[in-house]
Amino acid sequence: MEKQALSVNNYKGTRDFYPDDMLYRNWFFSKVKSVVEEYGFEEYNAPLLESFEIYAAKSGEEIAGEQLYSFLDKKNRRLAIRPEMTPSVARMVAAKLDTLVFPLRWFSIANFMRYENPQKGRLREHWQVNVDIFGSERMECELEIFAVVAGIMRAFGADKSMFRIRVNNRKFFNDVISQVLEADPAQVKLISKAVDKRAKISKESYDAWLSELGISAKQIGLLDEISASSYEAIKSKLESGSEGAAELDSLFSLLDQTGFSGLCEFDFSIVRGFDYYTGTVFEVYDTSPENRRSLFGGGRYDNLVSMFRDDAVSGIGFGLGDVTFQHFLAIHALIPESIFESPKVYVTRFADVPLQEYYTIAAELRAQGIPVCVHLLGEEKLGKQVGLAEKKRFPVVVIAGVDELANGTVAVKHLEMKQQFEWKRSEYVSKIKALLSGGKDPR
Amino acid sequence: MEKQALSVNNYKGTRDFYPDDMLYRNWFFSKVKSVVEEYGFEEYNAPLLESFEIYAAKSGEEIAGEQLYSFLDKKNRRLAIRPEMTPSVARMVAAKLDTLVFPLRWFSIANFMRYENPQKGRLREHWQVNVDIFGSERMECELEIFAVVAGIMRAFGADKSMFRIRVNNRKFFNDVISQVLEADPAQVKLISKAVDKRAKISKESYDAWLSELGISAKQIGLLDEISASSYEAIKSKLESGSEGAAELDSLFSLLDQTGFSGLCEFDFSIVRGFDYYTGTVFEVYDTSPENRRSLFGGGRYDNLVSMFRDDAVSGIGFGLGDVTFQHFLAIHALIPESIFESPKVYVTRFADVPLQEYYTIAAELRAQGIPVCVHLLGEEKLGKQVGLAEKKRFPVVVIAGVDELANGTVAVKHLEMKQQFEWKRSEYVSKIKALLSGGKDPR
Repeated sequence: MEKQALSVNNYKGTRDFYPDDMLYRNWFFSKVKSVVEEYGFEEYNAPLLESFEIYAAKSGEEIAGEQLYSFLDKKNRRLAIRPEMTPSVARMVAAKLDTLVFPLRWFSIANFMRYENPQKGRLREHWQVNVDIFGSERMECELEIFAVVAGIMRAFGADKSMFRIRVNNRKFFNDVISQVLEADPAQVKLISKAVDKRAKISKESYDAWLSELGISAKQIGLLDEISASSYEAIKSKLESGSEGAAELDSLFSLLDQTGFSGLCEFDFSIVRGFDYYTGTVFEVYDTSPENRRSLFGGGRYDNLVSMFRDDAVSGIGFGLGDVTFQHFLAIHALIPESIFESPKVYVTRFADVPLQEYYTIAAELRAQGIPVCVHLLGEEKLGKQVGLAEKKRFPVVVIAGVDELANGTVAVKHLEMKQQFEWKRSEYVSKIKALLSGGKDPR
Repeated sequence: MEKQALSVNNYKGTRDFYPDDMLYRNWFFSKVKSVVEEYGFEEYNAPLLESFEIYAAKSGEEIAGEQLYSFLDKKNRRLAIRPEMTPSVARMVAAKLDTLVFPLRWFSIANFMRYENPQKGRLREHWQVNVDIFGSERMECELEIFAVVAGIMRAFGADKSMFRIRVNNRKFFNDVISQVLEADPAQVKLISKAVDKRAKISKESYDAWLSELGISAKQIGLLDEISASSYEAIKSKLESGSEGAAELDSLFSLLDQTGFSGLCEFDFSIVRGFDYYTGTVFEVYDTSPENRRSLFGGGRYDNLVSMFRDDAVSGIGFGLGDVTFQHFLAIHALIPESIFESPKVYVTRFADVPLQEYYTIAAELRAQGIPVCVHLLGEEKLGKQVGLAEKKRFPVVVIAGVDELANGTVAVKHLEMKQQFEWKRSEYVSKIKALLSGGKDPR
């Protein structure tokens, strides 16, 4: 060929989902979906592209400035591929504020792109489920969101020892930093960025970062002390009342009442990267020593629609991405092998039998919900056809030659069991169904 | 507010999917998915972004030149948001050519972006299922694909009178144009573009277009004559043998043998817009006088992986988009109202009952697979809570006050039937389950 061959590699930081990868992804999201639907959440979805401005306004500098895939369309509109769902759903809520019946329990499953330096657990394109309650400021929403988190973890077989929900509150954080460290609002914001990255960098880098921001050695010492303290100890340092502390008190009381407090713990270092959080913030941590990291998280944002209209709609929710969570499930051996099995039937063909006979057999099986492939290539010997079925991990093969068809039977071969049966035409479908639900991995 | 409010409108040609829109989309794709899985097709998925070159190489000028959303990333890689799936899946097949077990039956459900002028049935972002068989040149693949098409139409309740599969063959088209019109290869390609658009423009524009391409009046007359002729009549005009005619003969014979020929008809004007088709091409048409248009289509492409490596892999498949097909289903009244119903239970709250009691009731119902929302706002009177449930289209409301809990009962209200029951705690879950499966639309 004269022209140069193109690369078969996908774009850096993205993934090709071959059938086994897709079986995993479908299993993962359908499990999450079944839990959130049990809690009455409704699914929505948003466009892939949004105007650049909605990220510039709310997502924070790291996202909008460095990580956004943005470009001009032919009419010079500045667009961006969504890096997260919250601004899109905020727009959708704002657009129908007068007709939607609040509170809303909404979720979505979608892909997002960020210009990251790809590394373990961080890709440029990832899939994420977003779960939110909109239109209520009550702490019962926090409780409900935590109940959904617990329900998801339980659905995957993760027991209480494997994860912990670490909770803080942005107002509380801000009050503590401003009162105890005597920091001004600009400093508070800068300190929150450093605290958010604390777990990912060395103590030296962290201290150097804070120093560069103009935070004094005394303030850094106070911050270290606070970060290691209990909620009550930190609260006692506040001179005046804190709305954030009142919210945390109320939340902890609800968690106690409903038995969820065992899953949760206060953690002053939880602040979350997005600028839009205004109240409760939380992250779900793996407790495994191999993987002490945040699996997913979320929080409350009171000014959800404020960039679109002058109304107040409070929201709380979380985003759960597929990449980090797959790692968690793998470490805890929570991905069942059975999700990669498929109870399919392969129908072989003989050249001297009309094709219609095999289409009829396939239709009979499909009518009972059994997936069937009819052999496509016409010329091969039976052994080659069965070999192909085996390579493709079909558990069961149907063989119907001139003799079987004349006798009103079909031969059925179970490949792993290496057994062959000859069954009457009137009963082979139900017998195959029983064979397939036998449940042994045929590979 | 000092800053200017951002627009709540989504980007032109894209859609927000509110919960009812999403119920439709999920219903649509899950129905298609269940059919293709019955035929043993496996799901895959590809990244949102690909290198620009793979579209430039294969998709044709209209797509790559005018309709692509493409841009440079920070390392000056020219990327494009996928406008279709075929180049991506070709790349994936090429990347694992040595380990994949052919033939492959693959499908995907994904969104695509094209810079179109939005109009009825054409948006800038649309969702599409792609169904393909890779790695076999046999006409049985065509038959299988047509069987899947018929299966999908049947699954939506579309009977044989509502649609027709119109079939042609690119090689046959090229042979006819080059032999009968005495056109050179460049002219053949240009003529195919005009024929592809014939149904969308006036006869005058069509003739003017062909004239501009240097097609003589005599050739245009011949083309008109051919376009109105039967397959046999056109074939008889060929002087030498045509591989395309042999393929069509073989396909028509298979369709006859298996009873699918009643769904199909030859149509010389079917050529399909993409440059990569090399053999069979087809489009599924609505037969309704209100909507005589192509619903979806596909074809065979022999050089699937040739831009990536020097191997031959033939493929055949189709793409079925959500926008045009929704219009078809609506015209034929094939969208059941029931897809917008949800058998959910709303649990009301009294301020003097511990929240935990309601969480227990919710857990009891969820354990039986019933979706439940517990009332989030704490202060409202019962009437207001029931009103909210009604507005949110919950069919059933649970009421459990101090008295009911003391008596070991719960009150259950069916909102549409306007009936209230008081059931024992031991039986209310199964009674609610029966009530919900009663099946009347509670709105």
